[in-house]
Amino acid sequence: MANRQILLKSRPVGEPTPANFECVDRPVPAPAAGGALVRTIYLSVDPYMRGRMNAGKSYADPVNIGDVMCGGTVGQVVESLDPTFKPGDLVLGDGGWQEFAALDGSRLRKLDANAAPISYTLGALGMPGMTAYVGMIDIGQPKAGETVVVSAAAGAVGSVAGQIAKLKGCRVVGIAGSDEKCRYVVESLGFDACINYKTEPLLGRLRKHCPGGIDVYFDSVAGSTLETILRLINVGARIPLIGLISLYNATELTPGPNLFPLLVRRAMIKGMIVSDHANRQPAFLADMTAWIRDGKVKVRETIVNGLENAPAAFIGLFRGENTGKMLVKVSREA
Amino acid sequence: MANRQILLKSRPVGEPTPANFECVDRPVPAPAAGGALVRTIYLSVDPYMRGRMNAGKSYADPVNIGDVMCGGTVGQVVESLDPTFKPGDLVLGDGGWQEFAALDGSRLRKLDANAAPISYTLGALGMPGMTAYVGMIDIGQPKAGETVVVSAAAGAVGSVAGQIAKLKGCRVVGIAGSDEKCRYVVESLGFDACINYKTEPLLGRLRKHCPGGIDVYFDSVAGSTLETILRLINVGARIPLIGLISLYNATELTPGPNLFPLLVRRAMIKGMIVSDHANRQPAFLADMTAWIRDGKVKVRETIVNGLENAPAAFIGLFRGENTGKMLVKVSREA
Repeated sequence: MANRQILLKSRPVGEPTPANFECVDRPVPAPAAGGALVRTIYLSVDPYMRGRMNAGKSYADPVNIGDVMCGGTVGQVVESLDPTFKPGDLVLGDGGWQEFAALDGSRLRKLDANAAPISYTLGALGMPGMTAYVGMIDIGQPKAGETVVVSAAAGAVGSVAGQIAKLKGCRVVGIAGSDEKCRYVVESLGFDACINYKTEPLLGRLRKHCPGGIDVYFDSVAGSTLETILRLINVGARIPLIGLISLYNATELTPGPNLFPLLVRRAMIKGMIVSDHANRQPAFLADMTAWIRDGKVKVRETIVNGLENAPAAFIGLFRGENTGKMLVKVSREA
Repeated sequence: MANRQILLKSRPVGEPTPANFECVDRPVPAPAAGGALVRTIYLSVDPYMRGRMNAGKSYADPVNIGDVMCGGTVGQVVESLDPTFKPGDLVLGDGGWQEFAALDGSRLRKLDANAAPISYTLGALGMPGMTAYVGMIDIGQPKAGETVVVSAAAGAVGSVAGQIAKLKGCRVVGIAGSDEKCRYVVESLGFDACINYKTEPLLGRLRKHCPGGIDVYFDSVAGSTLETILRLINVGARIPLIGLISLYNATELTPGPNLFPLLVRRAMIKGMIVSDHANRQPAFLADMTAWIRDGKVKVRETIVNGLENAPAAFIGLFRGENTGKMLVKVSREA
């Protein structure tokens, strides 16, 4: 039995391509003392991984050339040397882009398949959902009646962030990259409006849909969208900056927005990395589990089959090929 | 007896010039019911006035063409129809660029000449000092042992902001525009270092003087300085943005800094206008009065004589001609 792996073959210059990855078959590892061998069921692909493909430390160490690409996984225990886990257990871990991973028990969390679909642990109930939760609630601090704009509104993070703002009583306007996504955001997720930034004039449409100005902008994009938003912010606006997907593939340091509106409107931009906020996880899990159970937060996934398609799925994130969370289904649950 | 006034004659394009102002002699006004006639002793000139010279509302209404330029003043009551004030009283008000102003009593505050020099009410004990206080303490939140960088360090706001950070136990590095200012900032104000941005390489000197990175950047400048600072900020850095003097004379919207470091370092930029923070005035006045009295905050002023020189004094702000607070002495105390 082989362990198929996707390795980082070379560092991308600009947009990543399939040639930056290599698919190899290696022997299945044995679990170490205190660890377990886990068979991957779902692999998460996320925009942050683009940063790990660069040399040099950002907020985390890079993946080395020739190493297995990093990533969150949901899998099933095959063999365990940690008494906490037994074969068949469903676990969340950071197995990376491979079919099997030998992981230390301290890095695994047992999942209850009856609580929610196990894949949600990589999306709305996992890192992306918690990014939305902490970014929107703690930094955005939306108040009932305020206007909230959410970029990448059909994506894993934005879709949840906007729904949280709706739960807080806000007017919520999404920005997304296709008419189909915009329909989904309004009709399924309940946003008040959604703008297709690829076909509609952003400033004019924002003016129309945000007649009272913008109080919170949940930003995972940066770039020219942020510049446009700043023209419409209200006094005291809050801008949680949780990603910069428009810049991740840039080959040179592009300038940012003119900061005049920040001063004039006494507004705040604050960067956030969810791993700093582990103390918020219990509240997040309690709230989000209830919201999903009660239908207050709706979840969609885009699932690509087969580990060999992980590079294409990942590259697709930068082309907007996903609606909701992008996942790779690596194997079936036994 | 005439009332000399400086009017806004035309709106500047780029840097203001003397031709944007007009000096006229008008009749001295009579106080209205509930008001007082005040003879100006000191007029404050401040960078924010550049915004008032533009058409269109920023955070306050513009000065209209032909109107007296706005500005804070310290003066002496000549005649009063408000029982709170009597002739000879020293008062803080917003008399504008003129020798006499008829002001409503509600817009005047009586000054105690024994507490501190009356001109300080326009500087360290007034709007600039309170901008430094609220910006540094409430937004910057400096903690003992942290490294704080202050732009325009020899100016009315920066000089106070840096001294507050020293009082909080921080390492404080200033940025100023001449060797003389840098000497003043280090030798008189007690900053740990000061960089002459006109002659020294900013990035290299910041690296040298901030070996542990930058935790707080007190920004009244924006522009390329901010871009350089962002390369050296620590995780969780705070950047109070209290002015953008490098942009005030810009004739087009210049781009801002690349925002990547904000995300990677989970940092915050927050704009501040001091008039939002009136609730902090009692604490500010209590602390700052004591700090000045005890020699913990040192104050310097650059005083230009004669109302007719107010335009030159104001224009000089953008050329760094002041050390400490720039004031125009309009008349002597009677």
